[in-house]
Amino acid sequence: MPKINILKEAEKIKKPYTPYHLANVDNYHVFLGLFEGDYKKHKHPYDEFFLVVSGEIEIEMDKESVSLRQGEGILVKKNTWHKSQAKDKAVVMLFEKLGMQSEFV
Amino acid sequence: MPKINILKEAEKIKKPYTPYHLANVDNYHVFLGLFEGDYKKHKHPYDEFFLVVSGEIEIEMDKESVSLRQGEGILVKKNTWHKSQAKDKAVVMLFEKLGMQSEFV
Repeated sequence: MPKINILKEAEKIKKPYTPYHLANVDNYHVFLGLFEGDYKKHKHPYDEFFLVVSGEIEIEMDKESVSLRQGEGILVKKNTWHKSQAKDKAVVMLFEKLGMQSEFV
Repeated sequence: MPKINILKEAEKIKKPYTPYHLANVDNYHVFLGLFEGDYKKHKHPYDEFFLVVSGEIEIEMDKESVSLRQGEGILVKKNTWHKSQAKDKAVVMLFEKLGMQSEFV
């Protein structure tokens, strides 16, 4: 397997909120997302881990809202409504189950 | 869920090659490892993703040896013999199945 340079891969992403595949880990996967502006509020039946690679994002959840900067991560538990947003461009690494279907508001 | 500052968590790790838990993602988990010196050659029946948070490591596999620095990652596919080492201290984020049993040489 070739090694992956996260920041170099991040530079290739042009379209916000579209998974940019890095690796499958069994039936889970690691991918990058360019966060820019608002994403739609949604939930899904599996957990999702976020790690901010660059920039700053905010995740609004049922009971709290969390700001995350480079090097900060959070677990969004399954079935938790959440809405991501970024004022400026931010790149996030995510770990979650492959083929996860989201329910939107 | 509280947010996680990766570098602050990394500073708390004292013991090399001992998983430092960050979050469960369903039946997978995200954890940190302090790599220092040689780890034992092993393999396991599930995939493992490595991302170097600080420092530099080397992973020797069946057919190749890969050096990874901060911001670089690699997938070690299931059933691949691999041996990790770090000349100096390095911190690595790993993503793999919970409770994975390794077979050592």
